[in-house]
Amino acid sequence: MHDYRTTRRIEFSDTDLAGVVHFARFFVFMETAEDEFLRQLGASFTMHDRGRTIGWPKVSVACDYRSPARYGDTLDIHLAVEKVSRRTITYRFVFTRDGTEIARGRTTSACVEIKPDGTFASGPIPATLAGRIEPAGS
Amino acid sequence: MHDYRTTRRIEFSDTDLAGVVHFARFFVFMETAEDEFLRQLGASFTMHDRGRTIGWPKVSVACDYRSPARYGDTLDIHLAVEKVSRRTITYRFVFTRDGTEIARGRTTSACVEIKPDGTFASGPIPATLAGRIEPAGS
Amino acid sequence: MHDYRTTRRIEFSDTDLAGVVHFARFFVFMETAEDEFLRQLGASFTMHDRGRTIGWPKVSVACDYRSPARYGDTLDIHLAVEKVSRRTITYRFVFTRDGTEIARGRTTSACVEIKPDGTFASGPIPATLAGRIEPAGS
Amino acid sequence: MHDYRTTRRIEFSDTDLAGVVHFARFFVFMETAEDEFLRQLGASFTMHDRGRTIGWPKVSVACDYRSPARYGDTLDIHLAVEKVSRRTITYRFVFTRDGTEIARGRTTSACVEIKPDGTFASGPIPATLAGRIEPAGS
Repeated sequence: MHDYRTTRRIEFSDTDLAGVVHFARFFVFMETAEDEFLRQLGASFTMHDRGRTIGWPKVSVACDYRSPARYGDTLDIHLAVEKVSRRTITYRFVFTRDGTEIARGRTTSACVEIKPDGTFASGPIPATLAGRIEPAGS
Repeated sequence: MHDYRTTRRIEFSDTDLAGVVHFARFFVFMETAEDEFLRQLGASFTMHDRGRTIGWPKVSVACDYRSPARYGDTLDIHLAVEKVSRRTITYRFVFTRDGTEIARGRTTSACVEIKPDGTFASGPIPATLAGRIEPAGS
Repeated sequence: MHDYRTTRRIEFSDTDLAGVVHFARFFVFMETAEDEFLRQLGASFTMHDRGRTIGWPKVSVACDYRSPARYGDTLDIHLAVEKVSRRTITYRFVFTRDGTEIARGRTTSACVEIKPDGTFASGPIPATLAGRIEPAGS
Repeated sequence: MHDYRTTRRIEFSDTDLAGVVHFARFFVFMETAEDEFLRQLGASFTMHDRGRTIGWPKVSVACDYRSPARYGDTLDIHLAVEKVSRRTITYRFVFTRDGTEIARGRTTSACVEIKPDGTFASGPIPATLAGRIEPAGS
């Protein structure tokens, strides 16, 4: 599986005094699209794999904003897997509204083991997930 | 003026179930540091210039995460002006805790005129502000 | 119309380090349920009525928490209109998960006219809306 | 100790499209004031007591809004302890700006033990904290 499409309706609380969606909210929209994608593959942001508790902290994120989104808009979100390495997955996101591009983002999540004391240790992506995910265009 | 230093104490609500600061919160921290920087120069996210109502929407943002921040941490934030063009300002941010690097970010804000109907029109940075801001290292 | 039912899936970013939904997020969930209810009646948080720009600031809100909600939960939300006065609407909300009560809330929104300078002036609920809304149980 | 005073500067991201602070943000402001109060007493939202990991989930919260707060405002926050029971603490909050009342809130936090599996078990307030806290006016 290499891409996923979802939608999101802009809530009143997503906006700021400029009357548009606050830029940081797009990262929550990306994260929730990633979450839905992972769940389709039987994975999750809080999963277990052979005795490990797995988490997916972001290691690098970016977003370019083309046109404002506003309260009441429904955005189309297209997630595409850009790259899969042994320990990270990089996703690309395109946000559109009625075909007009609103924003483009990219996030990289690292697979980590969450230790009982709460610290993170980098680790391999579970094999069951790695085998089901592939970069778009590959 | 080309840089600015501030601090921020991590609040309980900044965290997520992984026990660390949610990655999207760093963009709020950057924005507030930018706000403090602008205010030192007599500017603001909601300023007026020769009859124009000025806003500063983000056009491009990014962040790399090196080490988690946790509830109760006090982060040192170093803002540096990377680039000033006729219509945009690009800032770089370094977050540290007791000297350990936590994250590095970059945001570009565009100067726009907010029209009475709420739409944005790109416009030049007010001269009074442009004359007081310069890239770090220049 | 006097009640409305919707659902909401808990997002990763809704949680805090205690591993549960942060208590303040429930107010966003209530607001969005209110928004959906208003839209079903042809109204909205940003509506116009006979030349007035109408807004609905909250004047009083409350929530009691019975059981934690967690990442991945789908909450059932039941909104009921408790009271309609000339200028305010009071809603009650019950959140459940698989029939277990999670929280109960109440919010009162006031109808205001938003003046061109951004200030609010209390005013009557638009007749077209007032005629279509009634307290549950009445 | 029975009360505490702090201030908070309104950030751009605290606002919504109505140009004022989003009502749910006041609960974060209350929580952070409570956190500062607890820290003054050597306590915290994530504390340990005789082998127990203690948390303070909210069981009941409320807020009445009198006048809008806006971007750039500095709010004065006055926390007062209203009631201390064996397992809960109730706080009252008054928000003012230059002496004008903005909002009044109340929150009740329950002392719980967070079990290794993440569930909560109600428990007594640690004696070291209970002995240092008393209702205002008592």
